[in-house]
Amino acid sequence: MSTQNNYTTLVRHLQRCRDIAGALRLLEWDQETYLPDGAVESRASQIGALSEVLHEQHTAPHFLDLVDELAERLGELSFEQAVDVRETKWQLDRERALDAALVRERSEQRATARSVWIKARRDDNFAALAPHLEKIVAMERRVAAAIDATRDPYEVLLEAYEPGLRLDRLETVLGEVRAGLQPLVARIRAVNERAPWPASPLLGDFAEDKQLAFNRQVLTAIGFDFANGRIDASAHPFSTTIGSDSRLTTRYDRSDLGYALYSSLHEAGHGMYEQGLDPQARGLPRGSACSLGVHESQSRLWENQIGRSRAFWDYLLPVAKQAFPALAPASVDAVCLAVNRMEPSFIRTESDEATYNLHILLRFELERALIGGDLHVGDLAQAWREKMRDLLGVVPPDDRQGVLQDVHWSAGEFGYFPTYTLGNLYAAQLLETAATELGDIDAVVRAGEFSVLLCWMRDRIHRWGQTWRAAELIERATGSAASAAPLLRHLERKVEWLEQR
Amino acid sequence: MSTQNNYTTLVRHLQRCRDIAGALRLLEWDQETYLPDGAVESRASQIGALSEVLHEQHTAPHFLDLVDELAERLGELSFEQAVDVRETKWQLDRERALDAALVRERSEQRATARSVWIKARRDDNFAALAPHLEKIVAMERRVAAAIDATRDPYEVLLEAYEPGLRLDRLETVLGEVRAGLQPLVARIRAVNERAPWPASPLLGDFAEDKQLAFNRQVLTAIGFDFANGRIDASAHPFSTTIGSDSRLTTRYDRSDLGYALYSSLHEAGHGMYEQGLDPQARGLPRGSACSLGVHESQSRLWENQIGRSRAFWDYLLPVAKQAFPALAPASVDAVCLAVNRMEPSFIRTESDEATYNLHILLRFELERALIGGDLHVGDLAQAWREKMRDLLGVVPPDDRQGVLQDVHWSAGEFGYFPTYTLGNLYAAQLLETAATELGDIDAVVRAGEFSVLLCWMRDRIHRWGQTWRAAELIERATGSAASAAPLLRHLERKVEWLEQR
Repeated sequence: MSTQNNYTTLVRHLQRCRDIAGALRLLEWDQETYLPDGAVESRASQIGALSEVLHEQHTAPHFLDLVDELAERLGELSFEQAVDVRETKWQLDRERALDAALVRERSEQRATARSVWIKARRDDNFAALAPHLEKIVAMERRVAAAIDATRDPYEVLLEAYEPGLRLDRLETVLGEVRAGLQPLVARIRAVNERAPWPASPLLGDFAEDKQLAFNRQVLTAIGFDFANGRIDASAHPFSTTIGSDSRLTTRYDRSDLGYALYSSLHEAGHGMYEQGLDPQARGLPRGSACSLGVHESQSRLWENQIGRSRAFWDYLLPVAKQAFPALAPASVDAVCLAVNRMEPSFIRTESDEATYNLHILLRFELERALIGGDLHVGDLAQAWREKMRDLLGVVPPDDRQGVLQDVHWSAGEFGYFPTYTLGNLYAAQLLETAATELGDIDAVVRAGEFSVLLCWMRDRIHRWGQTWRAAELIERATGSAASAAPLLRHLERKVEWLEQR
Repeated sequence: MSTQNNYTTLVRHLQRCRDIAGALRLLEWDQETYLPDGAVESRASQIGALSEVLHEQHTAPHFLDLVDELAERLGELSFEQAVDVRETKWQLDRERALDAALVRERSEQRATARSVWIKARRDDNFAALAPHLEKIVAMERRVAAAIDATRDPYEVLLEAYEPGLRLDRLETVLGEVRAGLQPLVARIRAVNERAPWPASPLLGDFAEDKQLAFNRQVLTAIGFDFANGRIDASAHPFSTTIGSDSRLTTRYDRSDLGYALYSSLHEAGHGMYEQGLDPQARGLPRGSACSLGVHESQSRLWENQIGRSRAFWDYLLPVAKQAFPALAPASVDAVCLAVNRMEPSFIRTESDEATYNLHILLRFELERALIGGDLHVGDLAQAWREKMRDLLGVVPPDDRQGVLQDVHWSAGEFGYFPTYTLGNLYAAQLLETAATELGDIDAVVRAGEFSVLLCWMRDRIHRWGQTWRAAELIERATGSAASAAPLLRHLERKVEWLEQR
């Protein structure tokens, strides 16, 4: 067969995988939204069966041979075709490095640890989780060694979420974040000591159906495409893409208008990225998201960079007042203050735009030490408390609000946390560039002309898929290498504003 | 491997097929309920991919060998195990009789004819559909011959929906229906000539969310299990089972309370049958519905036998009046008259409980003649009009309201229509038996004690799955062979009541 025919066969196979993966994601989406309680067991069985089918497709010998053959003839392919082959091979090589027994053991360990974690967190019992975490750390070290024994194991694990990212680059930017945030945290603490925060206008009584309609209106305005997407309710907000439609969920808190609004803006950022991928290349690397960090940059852009800006509330507050007459007395100032409240706290997911990144730094430093063998799981809870004191100046009263708060490690996800802060960095850097190129971005936002910004993101980020790795994508989009400086400038301005109030 | 080990392997394979089929049904359910408009194409691709995966599982050589081997050692299996092997082999033998090229051609023909049918019906242009129908008739004759060339081809096709049903048995009972209904139709026509029907109390303005809550209340009352089921809205009502949960849909007509109510009762009958199958045997023949006719008996039982009875409205009208104050002036008599209106008409799906069966007889006689070679597609539209005059005494003014009204033939479904009337027969016969055994069934219904009847159906019908073929199942449940007499007695009573008003 000619190389072109082989490439066509590859595309068909990847499209088949894409379709099976789409069905799998629908099973998962439905489980979180509409599945009747009694059907949980039967759903688990369906998800298991389809995961197996997908795995068989990914490891079919004829497919592996095809990819290897194509990878040796990249010169005979177009630039775009070569991207698809390069990224497919990169992914497969990682998967092939792990034998079936290891994969099964890993997945069983994770399933066990996750259910132990639920109980351990409920009971504030880190000791119950510790032996499972030890096994998981050992397993991840084995996995890293199997993939590439010549490199730092943490870097190998990190690449599962951020392909091509070198550990020294990550340490450099996270070091900048650490250095830049330390003085800011002191200033945030001073702001909190000076005066209590006024009551938030977004707290009150907001009927769920009204919130639902309002959120749809906001998402439509920022450019989320409901002809290729949905928003539904679930216990924990998430987003997923099923073939060509992007589905978001949120949770409505009757007493807090902000909860669903900000979670919707966040998830819609993810969804709009997926909606902006090349539809012709759906299921191929060129039509797939670049990395978790880049994905997160799009969600954080709309949630934080735009969603917590004064210009956004200049636009949104009149709209919100039409939907919720109770907001009539609220000023833009008061709402902005409420959505930009900053204060060191224990829980990452409830923390503010600035201190959030310190929660990530803490996890990065601890998980690197765990994987590097410099920290033992037995000392983890104590190390957590010490780092909280160092970085945030607060110490959680128990492990529920400390080391037990996140599921990631119990799920074996080492190297995942840094992508959240990378997303924040990229978002700030992208918006700074967009502002330079598009002129007065505040005026654009205030006028509700969000499509200008969305089109810019489509052009610079979305449409490229995995054509470039994240570092190159960001550099091409912004003209300079990824850096913490734009995020720090953004947060510095916010803190200054809080101080001057 | 021992026969017992082989049986265990068979069960695992069938469970895997069940799980993949569950995912496929979720893709289809979602397409009719929540899929964004823009994702139709990508959904078709997912359904195609999963259908292929399922087909590969059904035709995997090791699976076929396993079934053949087990079928030769039925004596080494328990009674229940032997049922699973017997029915699996019966199904596989039918599938194996068709080579892959034929299956593909058949499925392409059907897809084409269905889309041509949509346009042909819209344009009232039977001539546009005719050549496609001709191909489909020829194809179905080829299919029947490939499965069993020694038998009447119509009987072979019929068995796809009603395994084990002999054509002479079907002709006997449908002959009884024809003979019994002819005089009834004359009396129905006389009722209509005597006086116009009064306005229905169920027509008015009934808000959709109120109807939704009311329908949930009614379905909960009759025993539909919402912990293992759902009801949603779709353009055309249907029911499906995804693993262990049964999902119904309905369509809410603001101006007609009856539409959603009766379609919900119908679909809930299907759903409660599925919910009553043996959960331990889910995905195996013992845990699968017996036949389409038996399935339809459960839907027609709740829709017609119960749902249009006076006792049911004695129970329901006070409930309905609480939900809809506008119903306050309505009497049980007036509502019963409205939901039992009978009148010969053109459209099967809008016809009444009695004349419905004549619509089926017409289709049965025509499709038998088409498959038997006694009627040409070119003469079908004319034959339709003549049979309408003979059976119902009315002639549709165009083919949209005649031969073009149903999709079944364009979808290649020959032998499907009779199962609707079989369902009506079985429902009447089952309820007659239940009434004998359970005492005053009207009192049970009037008191809303539906679980008494549902438990009886669970015991006599649901839990057996495919343990017995339909004829034996009905005979075991009722003590006598399936017959048209109970249905005719039921309809005779209804017409008599209409005459006496």
